[in-house]
Amino acid sequence: MRAGKVVLALDGMGGDRAPDVVVNGADIARERYPGTTFLLFGDPAKLKPLVDKRKGLAQALEIVPAEDAVLADDKPSFALRRRRKSSMWLACQAAAEGRADTVVSAGNTGALLAISMFAMRMVEGVDRPALASFLPSSRGETVMLDLGANIECDADNLAQFAVMGSVFAQVLLGLDAPTVGLLNVGSEELKGHEEIRLAASMLRNVNSPVNFHGFVEGNDIGTGAVDVVVTDGFTGNVALKAIEGTAKLLMGRNGFVRDAFRTSTFAKIGYLFAAGAWTKLAKRVDPRRYNGGVFLGLDGVCVKSHGGTDDLGFAYAIGVAVDMVRYEYKSKLVEGLAKLHQVTSAAEAAGALEATGGAT
Amino acid sequence: MRAGKVVLALDGMGGDRAPDVVVNGADIARERYPGTTFLLFGDPAKLKPLVDKRKGLAQALEIVPAEDAVLADDKPSFALRRRRKSSMWLACQAAAEGRADTVVSAGNTGALLAISMFAMRMVEGVDRPALASFLPSSRGETVMLDLGANIECDADNLAQFAVMGSVFAQVLLGLDAPTVGLLNVGSEELKGHEEIRLAASMLRNVNSPVNFHGFVEGNDIGTGAVDVVVTDGFTGNVALKAIEGTAKLLMGRNGFVRDAFRTSTFAKIGYLFAAGAWTKLAKRVDPRRYNGGVFLGLDGVCVKSHGGTDDLGFAYAIGVAVDMVRYEYKSKLVEGLAKLHQVTSAAEAAGALEATGGAT
Repeated sequence: MRAGKVVLALDGMGGDRAPDVVVNGADIARERYPGTTFLLFGDPAKLKPLVDKRKGLAQALEIVPAEDAVLADDKPSFALRRRRKSSMWLACQAAAEGRADTVVSAGNTGALLAISMFAMRMVEGVDRPALASFLPSSRGETVMLDLGANIECDADNLAQFAVMGSVFAQVLLGLDAPTVGLLNVGSEELKGHEEIRLAASMLRNVNSPVNFHGFVEGNDIGTGAVDVVVTDGFTGNVALKAIEGTAKLLMGRNGFVRDAFRTSTFAKIGYLFAAGAWTKLAKRVDPRRYNGGVFLGLDGVCVKSHGGTDDLGFAYAIGVAVDMVRYEYKSKLVEGLAKLHQVTSAAEAAGALEATGGAT
Repeated sequence: MRAGKVVLALDGMGGDRAPDVVVNGADIARERYPGTTFLLFGDPAKLKPLVDKRKGLAQALEIVPAEDAVLADDKPSFALRRRRKSSMWLACQAAAEGRADTVVSAGNTGALLAISMFAMRMVEGVDRPALASFLPSSRGETVMLDLGANIECDADNLAQFAVMGSVFAQVLLGLDAPTVGLLNVGSEELKGHEEIRLAASMLRNVNSPVNFHGFVEGNDIGTGAVDVVVTDGFTGNVALKAIEGTAKLLMGRNGFVRDAFRTSTFAKIGYLFAAGAWTKLAKRVDPRRYNGGVFLGLDGVCVKSHGGTDDLGFAYAIGVAVDMVRYEYKSKLVEGLAKLHQVTSAAEAAGALEATGGAT
């Protein structure tokens, strides 16, 4: 664990309920993570009154003026080129230049990905970043990536994602050797796209930097069959949203469960008796607890909070960023990537020999 | 609606609990769908005692001896070549040769797909079959395909799946112009793989045979934003299993909901009062109601029941097959495909003109 303070750059103007949620979330996080300080980027006229209302926050926080803001419907390319003076851009830049250890934003996802990639660059050994998050499982929590940063992925991307996800689970879940699975349509070795089978063969290597479990299927996400589920951004995004949709269909305000309890007087009484159970349940599936989407693979730490999150959710996102810095995500990732590079270059060398007929 | 009797070919030896479930399911279906008769393929020594126990079933059912059976772990290619005398093969052949209107099996999915494709062939205008099924949504039921028959799909495949799914929803859900959505990572026109965008442009055509809604996302499956969700077999299989896994995580025997009701005495009392609500809920998400996976695109009707289903589940699968025959799925599909062919050939002709610089 790294000693010393963690400095966070916050995008004060990003998200549906900014800047209130950002300031309030920072205040909650300040109490939870003593020693944490903040650079808050945005419009001082809006930020200062909110900060001043929160006792003690002003001592841990510096407002850095930003005259522009990225809008929710800005195209990533537009935000990247034309919003250089936005709170998001300046916050990413602060993290890239070492004035902050990490950046947290609840703003436009595509814009944040584009800007953080441009400002921070990729860490050596990673070709593309991936969006990772936690999902609830019957064993606790499962890390899943990529959730939508890359529509198409080759075998190298997937193998790199496996290392990125494994190190993330080590740091955030405190696991020594998290198990990693590649999402596929069956657990047999012959199934699935070629890039998945190729990535699996890299990760199966004895010198592989990850504890590779093999292929997993969609239902294994919920059972927690592995600690980390790796897939391309198209499949990951569809699966994530299908899971969210199912949870809402069953447990939502007008979901099947609530609906069933409206059918009879008996059921309504049962509902009242069981109020504690509902509260426990709501806590267990609270989306705010899973509110730390992270762009992995950058040469830095960038956490994306849900745009519609509340104070507590934003504080959770800050917590993810703090843990990644404290438990040295980046240096562990660099180690893992170096090991992966050894495996893949050895495989390539062997392939090159084969291609020349095995001549020595 | 077609007049006259429906003759079903049943694979008597397919499924975890065959032949009992097949015979009992047929008996339930016989009462539900008067006029339906059965050709039951399998080992007469095992089948006859079961049939004789069920009063009246023998009059609606003929046992056709089959000396072999496809096993659950047979490779599709092996079953196709070496199980020619199996109950599954003979049942598919009966449907292909017109001795039966449709075939229903709870056996090995891959083998059934291979054998039914070989025996029945594809209907003209369809290149690849797709596995379709119903999923529960807040509006009722959503048809989704492909659920795993094809790992990779091009734009033509997806457009054909859209027609197949649309006709299936017309016939099974009784809708005049079911809405169809293509599964994607965002609803904007520019997002997603090229084959999806190309398929969308075909389906958007004014002469398109389907009521095309545009792109949908993973969460739209549960909301029932469209009646039919179209995707490739890899994404569809992952999404289906992710949905099943989430339902189990929340509602299963050791799921979050039950777990919450074990926390306190109050909650346990509440659980008892609400017994009726639980029963209603269980009925609403009863997997047996969604037990009619269908291979669409064949020159015939082939319904795949879950391998582990019970009597009632198998009767539901028979019901799907009966409806597809009665409401003339095949002739409606042929009509739709002819319209799609006009759209795509017109687009190709336009493309050809463009390629030659628009010269006339």
